[in-house]
Amino acid sequence: SRSIRLAVIPGDGIGPEVVAQGLKVLDSVLPSDVKLETREYDLGARRWHATGETLPDAELASLKQHDAILLGAIGDPTVPSGVLERGLLLKLRFAFDHYVNLRPSKLFPHTVSPLAGRPEIDFVVVREGTEGPYTGNGGSLRTGTPAEVATEVSVNTAYGVERVVRDAYERAQARPRRKLTLVHKNNVLVHAGHLWKSVFDRVGREYPEVTTDYLHVDAATIFFVTQPERFDVIVTDNLFGDILTDLAAAVTGGIGLAASGNINPTGAFPSMFEPVHGSAPDIAGTGKADPTATVLSVALLLRHLGYEAEAARVETAVAEDITGRGSVVRTTDQVGDALVSRVLASVQTG
Amino acid sequence: SRSIRLAVIPGDGIGPEVVAQGLKVLDSVLPSDVKLETREYDLGARRWHATGETLPDAELASLKQHDAILLGAIGDPTVPSGVLERGLLLKLRFAFDHYVNLRPSKLFPHTVSPLAGRPEIDFVVVREGTEGPYTGNGGSLRTGTPAEVATEVSVNTAYGVERVVRDAYERAQARPRRKLTLVHKNNVLVHAGHLWKSVFDRVGREYPEVTTDYLHVDAATIFFVTQPERFDVIVTDNLFGDILTDLAAAVTGGIGLAASGNINPTGAFPSMFEPVHGSAPDIAGTGKADPTATVLSVALLLRHLGYEAEAARVETAVAEDITGRGSVVRTTDQVGDALVSRVLASVQTG
Ligand SMILES: CC(C)[C@H](C(=O)O)[C@@H](O)C(=O)O
Ligand SMILES: CC(C)[C@H](C(=O)O)[C@@H](O)C(=O)O
Repeated sequence: SRSIRLAVIPGDGIGPEVVAQGLKVLDSVLPSDVKLETREYDLGARRWHATGETLPDAELASLKQHDAILLGAIGDPTVPSGVLERGLLLKLRFAFDHYVNLRPSKLFPHTVSPLAGRPEIDFVVVREGTEGPYTGNGGSLRTGTPAEVATEVSVNTAYGVERVVRDAYERAQARPRRKLTLVHKNNVLVHAGHLWKSVFDRVGREYPEVTTDYLHVDAATIFFVTQPERFDVIVTDNLFGDILTDLAAAVTGGIGLAASGNINPTGAFPSMFEPVHGSAPDIAGTGKADPTATVLSVALLLRHLGYEAEAARVETAVAEDITGRGSVVRTTDQVGDALVSRVLASVQTG
Repeated sequence: SRSIRLAVIPGDGIGPEVVAQGLKVLDSVLPSDVKLETREYDLGARRWHATGETLPDAELASLKQHDAILLGAIGDPTVPSGVLERGLLLKLRFAFDHYVNLRPSKLFPHTVSPLAGRPEIDFVVVREGTEGPYTGNGGSLRTGTPAEVATEVSVNTAYGVERVVRDAYERAQARPRRKLTLVHKNNVLVHAGHLWKSVFDRVGREYPEVTTDYLHVDAATIFFVTQPERFDVIVTDNLFGDILTDLAAAVTGGIGLAASGNINPTGAFPSMFEPVHGSAPDIAGTGKADPTATVLSVALLLRHLGYEAEAARVETAVAEDITGRGSVVRTTDQVGDALVSRVLASVQTG
């Protein structure tokens, strides 16, 4: 009999609320012979306030013993900016070598986009997850004085760029349109930009069926709002990917629907799935949080673990739920229940 | 009698076409006692192909003898990416210490925004222009091998951050809404982010009437499309400013309307005015380029040199022209002529 050992990090703010719905849907969709073992980790603002810890080594070692991680959201206004992000969220992405940060963007039927008209949006951003300006390299000198100098070093390696670019070509190759766009800023960031562009071109010769193009990041933001239909797969650096995927979420009906996977494709470490949105402390506890992004992240988790049919059922349930949304405001829990019902109904008819 | 010594760099692609219209409008609006002396500089792709030069020292020294610079656009696909950008455009911004890169965004009546509804947009981005990831610091090791490492160093100084932040507070203080938003990514880029935030907070104590807030750059892109009316003045780093101002141009009806000023507020060096758009080689020579962004850049130039009434007349002419635009397609030259007519009419009635 099969099993999934799932580590759960509910985290801060609305994190626990949306994770609860994700788990409900996961439970409802798994075949009965699959044993789901979950273990919850108390990490985030509460833990830091209580003990000063963000991610102790023992916890990291324990997390590693899992098939995957489901994370809600990390961050709280009572904790200095960067402490939990660098000490917990980014530490996990780096420690578990999540070099593919996968962020699909799709405009579901009936979703209201802030863009006029009815653009067709169905692309996926493959964001590099372990390098670039996110390494924490850099520092500050004469901090707090009028002579302070602060640096941030973007580190890019052929090793790191090639593996994520290759992953992106594979994904583009597997999609009907077979188009891959590199986004960077190689007219200004010439060193890193040259590395990205030359690796992109070289690896591309192995994928003759994939059409490629290149855009500067500033121009890419324009096309995200004027011509989002031009994109299929996008590969980009860690920081550009961060910026572009929030913009992508905004134009596809909001951050409440944007899922992500922090993936280690080699399987050497557990991959981690989380909504793109943050902990939204302003609405925590009100039942207003939309759990859809977490549920879609569960679909990515299922696909990553080989449960393709189940992933598709979850995505269909979400698409139906969004299409059927009226003007009635539902609680976090009600949305979760509705998704569970649709998932269960699909097993009976499907 | 007064005079303006203006250096003109038409540049590449549509640059010369739009600059010609900008000069026409400038000529038409200046009071008759102001002597306009222009000197044109042959810099850009043609020059580089012919001589290998981007910006020789003698040219730089000569440019320095002017009151201001009007630039069209720099960049051509026949020149390796970065050569003209770093060797000419950025060299000018750095050599002339253009630490305030001013980019207003306004949705004119009747302009079609890609955003649904009719958002109110009237904000200005104060982009730092001499530091951050644009310094060219960094390099690559074992270039072209599988062991390559390429770095880009973002350099931020208290000196550099404080002067641009102070300029932004002054601008916010002078506007009716008196609101200033700092955009950075201080939860990840903790060294630079901490410097920016602490300078922003400290200088802010001198401007008690200015309301402030802080946004991460990724969240800022969301608000640009969902709530652009929340912004008044934004201050941000060189790279974030580059990305955000293209997005701002897109949501306010296109890059064809976005003006910018690379300003040295001390007056030690000439400031430089240019449209935000690039050289658009695909439409060069077709008469399709919209010169409006260049004309609005001329308005910024006039204001910078103290010709406030003339700046306002140019801006009014543009607003009227945009409002009166029908579906008839006009050439670059026709738009320029229409703006000249409106400017001339305004002197008779105004
Ligand atoms: C919280 C923050 C560190 C994180 C990031 O910048 O990667 C978030 O914005 C994201 O996109 O997952
Ligand atoms: C051409 C390029 C170097 C430039 C920049 O990145 O600053 C442009 O995008 C701009 O915004 O003026």
